[in-house]
Amino acid sequence: MLSPLPSAKAMVPFVSVENMMRLVHHLGVETVLAELADAIEADFRRWESFDKTPRVASHSRDGVIELMPTSDGSVYSFKYVNGHPKNTVDGLQTVTAFGLLAEVSTGYPVLLTEMTLLTALRTAATSAMAARHLAPKSTRTMTMIGNGAQAEFQALAMKAVCGIDTVRLYDIDPRATEKTVQNLAGFDLKVVACRSAQEAIEGAEIITTCTADKQFATILTDNMVGAGVHINAIGGDCPGKTELHRDILKRSDVFVEFPPQTRIEGEIQQMAPDFPVVELWKVVTGAAPGRRDAKQITLFDSVGFAIEDFSALRYVRERLSGTDFYQNLDMIADPDDPRDLFGMLQRAK
Amino acid sequence: MLSPLPSAKAMVPFVSVENMMRLVHHLGVETVLAELADAIEADFRRWESFDKTPRVASHSRDGVIELMPTSDGSVYSFKYVNGHPKNTVDGLQTVTAFGLLAEVSTGYPVLLTEMTLLTALRTAATSAMAARHLAPKSTRTMTMIGNGAQAEFQALAMKAVCGIDTVRLYDIDPRATEKTVQNLAGFDLKVVACRSAQEAIEGAEIITTCTADKQFATILTDNMVGAGVHINAIGGDCPGKTELHRDILKRSDVFVEFPPQTRIEGEIQQMAPDFPVVELWKVVTGAAPGRRDAKQITLFDSVGFAIEDFSALRYVRERLSGTDFYQNLDMIADPDDPRDLFGMLQRAK
Repeated sequence: MLSPLPSAKAMVPFVSVENMMRLVHHLGVETVLAELADAIEADFRRWESFDKTPRVASHSRDGVIELMPTSDGSVYSFKYVNGHPKNTVDGLQTVTAFGLLAEVSTGYPVLLTEMTLLTALRTAATSAMAARHLAPKSTRTMTMIGNGAQAEFQALAMKAVCGIDTVRLYDIDPRATEKTVQNLAGFDLKVVACRSAQEAIEGAEIITTCTADKQFATILTDNMVGAGVHINAIGGDCPGKTELHRDILKRSDVFVEFPPQTRIEGEIQQMAPDFPVVELWKVVTGAAPGRRDAKQITLFDSVGFAIEDFSALRYVRERLSGTDFYQNLDMIADPDDPRDLFGMLQRAK
Repeated sequence: MLSPLPSAKAMVPFVSVENMMRLVHHLGVETVLAELADAIEADFRRWESFDKTPRVASHSRDGVIELMPTSDGSVYSFKYVNGHPKNTVDGLQTVTAFGLLAEVSTGYPVLLTEMTLLTALRTAATSAMAARHLAPKSTRTMTMIGNGAQAEFQALAMKAVCGIDTVRLYDIDPRATEKTVQNLAGFDLKVVACRSAQEAIEGAEIITTCTADKQFATILTDNMVGAGVHINAIGGDCPGKTELHRDILKRSDVFVEFPPQTRIEGEIQQMAPDFPVVELWKVVTGAAPGRRDAKQITLFDSVGFAIEDFSALRYVRERLSGTDFYQNLDMIADPDDPRDLFGMLQRAK
């Protein structure tokens, strides 16, 4: 058999889950979170150079499958991601993802990678990047309500980027809190398990909500939120799924990633279509103010946006260079003569 | 190192280009084309059960990158495909592609595969399936104008599905025709190389146009097309790219895959938005007539649609069963406790 050896162009580097974990440990998880926050901030600074489109969602009874593409004119990326809250009942992940980078000039893929872990990392890095601009000065304590798969990543990103030293945890399931306490041991953070959301928010400058129910919920009520805090609302991220009482939104300055998407998927889906929001990229560039005073309640209504995945994919591609944390996939047919696809097939016989 | 062994759910079967070629030879290329035509026809018959959305295109100076998702409520698929006409100058493929199947109920991917070859196969199978309904009875001869990567697949699909025995070839580049003549040797087809499009269409019941220029072109003019032929127009498949003079469209009954997409990308982009077309799936189900008489000019204005990829991906998945023409990719993070993604990362250290 004369097997056609694929050329370099035909090979797509693939980062498996195992290789992603090796890469993260090779670099250090806090380093990765801090560098990702910087990479995302750099791309938010050039927000206007990106093709932006709301994600393409395929909804079903049990969940959603989404494609999130973007491009800066030179590099194209997309992420495949699902959200199936009931998956945990069967021992499956609620959210799994993979992503791809391609060259705009040729359309050829240049990286395929798992993105379940990478999404967890970039989501936390985005929260921390936003908090760097919006949280009170000299923030020390974050409350984490919802101690699921995102909890530790949030805690470590806020430590690496914003310098917090204390995390206060609450979850309706004490086992989730226990898991998070155990996982955060050895990271030089004071970790406090709390028995109620009310207790958890005591003394915190940052309140992060990240619960998984696909329904309108009220994780925080208005009377729980004092002046001066920064709320990092992660869990309200699809139609019908919110975490905050709408009265909190009315008292807050609300910052979002991409308004057309957030108005459908974020906390502000509870509000009128003209409810005022500030685009986070404008805060990053200085075009809009972030936190103005110590009493202001800032709220990052985060739903996740394709540009954050783009930044994360580019970051992984850069950091892969010189390592062996990938394998080459023979994914692109590459005949000697591009018009001779059939000849390539015949010669492989 | 305590490396977490991924579970079966976390593993995604991947079909490389080499394995796709092995699978096709294992089954036989004409068998694959005939079975694909049947699989696509079966899905056209249940057209109304699919989620349909125009492809999500990212256009740039040199080409386009597209995502083509669809779902039947039980299985989800998407294809990544680029179109970069200038790629051939650098020895790259104009079109490359890969695709994915996932379970709607969990969002978990169940197949990742190269689709450059598979798209060539399904495009030809779709053309042949359409011709089975639209071409004159006892069709013997097909003309192929444009002898690029799609040419041999079209010829063999029309042979396997419609029973043609003669192919007449023309390309502005005689080397493309010569390549096609060589590749079709041994397939029990009479192959005639012609020196002009005019010469090529003599005596043909089916005229297939499949040229690659990204521009408005006129491969066929009105006076070239006689009564009773079936035109299989493949090459006009993105905004600004057509192959037929508009007068031909006026004399033809035009059949399309998905009107909202074809009106933007197909030959009918030259016509008014209300130019009458028939949806091919209605012909397949019997809800609309196909060919009514021997003098009628039928025209399949094909741009390629996500459901054809869905059918092809499902077909490959079925045919993979019991073979070793795939490798398992560790693509989905799969912690023992779904909420303990961070713990999985830590334990891999």
